[in-house]
Amino acid sequence: MSHATVPSLAPSAAILVIGNEILSGRTQDANLHYLAGQLDELGIPVREARVVPDVAAEIIAAVNYLRGRYTYVFTSGGIGPTHDDITSACIAEAFGTRLHRHPDAVKLLESHYAPGDLTEARLKMAEVPDGATLIDNPVSKAPGFRIGNVFVLAGVPRICKAMFEQLKDQLAGGPPIHKRTISCTLGEGAIAADLGAIQARFPGIDIGSYPYFRMGAMGTSLVVRGTDAAAIDGAAAAIRAMIEAHGGTPIEA
Amino acid sequence: MSHATVPSLAPSAAILVIGNEILSGRTQDANLHYLAGQLDELGIPVREARVVPDVAAEIIAAVNYLRGRYTYVFTSGGIGPTHDDITSACIAEAFGTRLHRHPDAVKLLESHYAPGDLTEARLKMAEVPDGATLIDNPVSKAPGFRIGNVFVLAGVPRICKAMFEQLKDQLAGGPPIHKRTISCTLGEGAIAADLGAIQARFPGIDIGSYPYFRMGAMGTSLVVRGTDAAAIDGAAAAIRAMIEAHGGTPIEA
Repeated sequence: MSHATVPSLAPSAAILVIGNEILSGRTQDANLHYLAGQLDELGIPVREARVVPDVAAEIIAAVNYLRGRYTYVFTSGGIGPTHDDITSACIAEAFGTRLHRHPDAVKLLESHYAPGDLTEARLKMAEVPDGATLIDNPVSKAPGFRIGNVFVLAGVPRICKAMFEQLKDQLAGGPPIHKRTISCTLGEGAIAADLGAIQARFPGIDIGSYPYFRMGAMGTSLVVRGTDAAAIDGAAAAIRAMIEAHGGTPIEA
Repeated sequence: MSHATVPSLAPSAAILVIGNEILSGRTQDANLHYLAGQLDELGIPVREARVVPDVAAEIIAAVNYLRGRYTYVFTSGGIGPTHDDITSACIAEAFGTRLHRHPDAVKLLESHYAPGDLTEARLKMAEVPDGATLIDNPVSKAPGFRIGNVFVLAGVPRICKAMFEQLKDQLAGGPPIHKRTISCTLGEGAIAADLGAIQARFPGIDIGSYPYFRMGAMGTSLVVRGTDAAAIDGAAAAIRAMIEAHGGTPIEA
């Protein structure tokens, strides 16, 4: 069952991870987890994420779908200098515009590379769609960019994080998402019925149940999330009482 | 630019990760990386992955889109006993069928739980869509299932892996995907033009370029992938020669 966490006017986000290396299992993506946590902290819940290969039609279709559906879209990957870095060109095509060499981006690259090292390939990293604004990259200078509601970030996790730090002041956050996590050593199946009843009593918030296995011990973490602080507290109190009624000890992190 | 890695008759796969906890940043998904690597080894390239919340309409729409487009779909998450575990019901709805309590699944649960502990909530884990076949869960008994080309697996990584081990003999693998990885301490931008020329000479294979930062050193890993072993060797030789021509030392893992 779905429970609306946030009023309909609240912002939303989607994340689009671009790169063959994620889909081949070569690389474990880290950007989705990072961006999702950061956006959640800003009251901008991530509603969907996708991973697509370095295939133009796939990237363009995903960008156009996601940007029409969510307040913000964040892409990671594919903005380097090599032939398989096609994200910028795809974003331009998705927006029906063209790439141009952004003078400020060229200056940034000139400040970073010795004159002989600023190859044509590296200058490709200064190309952004018409109408885009740059996102600073304090790690290696080659910038990301924003066009409309789409933020285009690097795939290298350290650079993706640094770019997000630079851009996050541009985001209109939503109502704070309150969360409480209450754990116990009872199994999910022992408390499932009572937990479902608590969820039914608090339809405006989300209660998630996650089994864990830690140091040989099994247990369940219950996560209560939502924008209504009073409802969160009510649900948390009900969960604590329910755990105790089952002979467990609620532990709140 | 996109380069077809595999002939059009080769199998393909998509992965659908289901769960609010991934999109909120609470949990770092591990199943996509694991499944992608395993499928790649079987010659079944993963073409797309999605992460959706515990929202029925989103799960149903994603399953129906992906199962129509790819040879196999693997879902992870949402098959436990609690109210937020809605995957099985959504899969049934996606296939236009109903859930029923599978007698073999009931037996598995009966063998695992003491009689008083097999709650109605736990028995929910024995419900699968009509027409589904069970996938064994050697960790905690509650099974996954297959219906049509969709394999429904647990979200807990240890159980997801164990289920994949049980089901992988059911998959029709494709031509082996050969890979070679050649690294060097040259920057991507120094070799990008020559690398693009090599890719153009070998259009039937995929060459990916991935910068790395390791122990303070920067470099580039070039990954050559495809089903044509001779073309892979040709491209790898060309890459090694190209690195040496730039004064670098090719290192093959």
